[in-house]
Amino acid sequence: MDYGRESLKKHYEWKGKLEVAPRAAVDSREALSLAYTPGVAAPCLEIEKDVEKSYELTRRWNTVAVVTDGSAVLGLGDIGPEAGMPVMEGKCVLFKAFGGVDAIPLCIRSQKVEEIVNTVALLAGSFGGVNLEDISAPRCFEIEEKLKERCDIPIFHDDQHGTAVITLAGLSNALKVVGKKKESVRVVINGAGAAAVSIARLLLSAGYGDITLCDRRGAIYEGREQGMNWIKEEVSRHTNRSRRAGSLAETLAGADVFIGVSAPGMVTREMVRTMNRDAIVFACANPTPEIYPDEAKAGGAAVTATGRSDYPNQINNVLAFPGIFRGALDARASDINDAMKIAAATALAGLIEEDRLCADYIIPAAFDPRVKGAVAAAVAQAARDSGVARI
Amino acid sequence: MDYGRESLKKHYEWKGKLEVAPRAAVDSREALSLAYTPGVAAPCLEIEKDVEKSYELTRRWNTVAVVTDGSAVLGLGDIGPEAGMPVMEGKCVLFKAFGGVDAIPLCIRSQKVEEIVNTVALLAGSFGGVNLEDISAPRCFEIEEKLKERCDIPIFHDDQHGTAVITLAGLSNALKVVGKKKESVRVVINGAGAAAVSIARLLLSAGYGDITLCDRRGAIYEGREQGMNWIKEEVSRHTNRSRRAGSLAETLAGADVFIGVSAPGMVTREMVRTMNRDAIVFACANPTPEIYPDEAKAGGAAVTATGRSDYPNQINNVLAFPGIFRGALDARASDINDAMKIAAATALAGLIEEDRLCADYIIPAAFDPRVKGAVAAAVAQAARDSGVARI
Repeated sequence: MDYGRESLKKHYEWKGKLEVAPRAAVDSREALSLAYTPGVAAPCLEIEKDVEKSYELTRRWNTVAVVTDGSAVLGLGDIGPEAGMPVMEGKCVLFKAFGGVDAIPLCIRSQKVEEIVNTVALLAGSFGGVNLEDISAPRCFEIEEKLKERCDIPIFHDDQHGTAVITLAGLSNALKVVGKKKESVRVVINGAGAAAVSIARLLLSAGYGDITLCDRRGAIYEGREQGMNWIKEEVSRHTNRSRRAGSLAETLAGADVFIGVSAPGMVTREMVRTMNRDAIVFACANPTPEIYPDEAKAGGAAVTATGRSDYPNQINNVLAFPGIFRGALDARASDINDAMKIAAATALAGLIEEDRLCADYIIPAAFDPRVKGAVAAAVAQAARDSGVARI
Repeated sequence: MDYGRESLKKHYEWKGKLEVAPRAAVDSREALSLAYTPGVAAPCLEIEKDVEKSYELTRRWNTVAVVTDGSAVLGLGDIGPEAGMPVMEGKCVLFKAFGGVDAIPLCIRSQKVEEIVNTVALLAGSFGGVNLEDISAPRCFEIEEKLKERCDIPIFHDDQHGTAVITLAGLSNALKVVGKKKESVRVVINGAGAAAVSIARLLLSAGYGDITLCDRRGAIYEGREQGMNWIKEEVSRHTNRSRRAGSLAETLAGADVFIGVSAPGMVTREMVRTMNRDAIVFACANPTPEIYPDEAKAGGAAVTATGRSDYPNQINNVLAFPGIFRGALDARASDINDAMKIAAATALAGLIEEDRLCADYIIPAAFDPRVKGAVAAAVAQAARDSGVARI
């Protein structure tokens, strides 16, 4: 099927993939007096007395904003805020279908960090959380960081953390398959954008010992002088401890794990051949991966994953964000922290039964009905354990 | 019924009066590929080429933001953004039920004009229109004016214009009942807030000749020195041409029309008695009017109206805003201008059949099923005639 053509046709038919549905009747004078004036003054005054009541008397407890500036939409790049809207509406549909979350798409007509931060922060009282989406790096890191400082609700940039959570889940199962330990494997991540940086940070946080990021210039190391920016410098202080330099091919030699969140065709069969025995290759560039699974396996890879639905082990964000927000909202969390992300990954990985775990089944399928509940429960528990839950 | 108590109970049950409903399925891999990646790239690129397509390929054509800062919620005053939310959600329910409009409630955590303007203006690409709500005067005038300058979608402060449209509708029918002409009647408006100023402006725009606003200090006239602000000064240049000074009671003597958008009990039977014969008294303070209809009639009033549903002739905003936005959205209008507001008022007034028109029936009932269609059609036509329609 030509998905683009068919999707365009469907979008003209849908005329929007979301609508607002009332939960209160206003079909009589009396109903109107309860849902609106004069009765509505009573819940207003309750919230005035205690702002936390906004989570009980309005939809805030279940509502998330899905926010973009249109600067890095899918693989299409900077196409503008309005043009990002079909993706945001789609994301909101997924939020409801897979997490029971009411999500509202907002596109912002600015690419200035301060303006985006101000806009979202000033709206934080309307929502129980904010999902940032398709905002280009390295601005996305700064925007998220500043919003986390200013807001009392969870701020979550899915392009970073959703991908990181599923990668961590898949990787922990892949290591089981090949019998290696996170403390001793050497991981090479190709890419230095939102997903790559977040994957590196989360793997570190989860106890992975040896991680090196590569960009177009090869391995990123502390003190490298060319092609750096503040986020690469930040990351270089915690990765590639031996300050290895060299191309991606050179860096990959002897590595145990390759994680690509970069561009099509960056890795060859020969490069995989130079990796350590039982190599793990996650090639997540979409739709064309860094290397196709069959090529990687021909090069000796033991476990592969991609972003595609037509190969085993799909790294698909829909496995993570709906359940993560469901759990964060259920616990009325003020943040989505690393403990919650690691809990989500652990829950996802744990859905694969020991006796079914194998090279072609390390990540649950996108439509696995157990995902939402397992992730949400683990995330809510982690929120409580880490002290960011309010209920 | 104790509406407050009952409403609070209902609000705890509802847990939010709105939810988001998907219009696209994502229950299979194929459905997901059409509503989301990879198919969704196609509508994105269409909008990138032509931003107007956002009105066809996303919900923008039918979506309105309902925005407050919580500074003047109902008669409760400055209760804060989150506390205003039950009203905003209720308003959104009315938008859907009475206008078929998808409305999204947003509360802003700032009362600074520039911050509110920036926030809303940066979100304008997400919506087909903006309904400002419960923002205190005189900031509301400045916020609306600046937003109108910056945005390419309609900005409509309902507390101002909704009330003004229905007042104009009711007044034109009231004049028919008593056989007076708008050019020759003397109108006294008590109040200098959002509704009062907008009513004065719209009546002037509709051809009313002699209008005087009163505030706590009495008649407002050009050059008055005490208790003025920029909006009163602005209004004073177009009203009270004879620069009459004096208390409300003094101003009311000999007047044909009283419009109260002020506070309970401001007008007495004796004051009505000093008005011209066949006086018209719209006492819209809510829930307790400036004077009750029976008192006003005892003072000689020929026609009365209030904001209450338990007396004839209710000035109820639900008669106006749903149809006005329906019409503006249908015409993809870039503005809601005076011509469109006057058209809405004329359509509303026209729903009262000549042979049924009488002192107790000058305004259609809130649940009159003809209202939405009549108002929407008139507003869309006026948008086209006045050159602000895009389709």
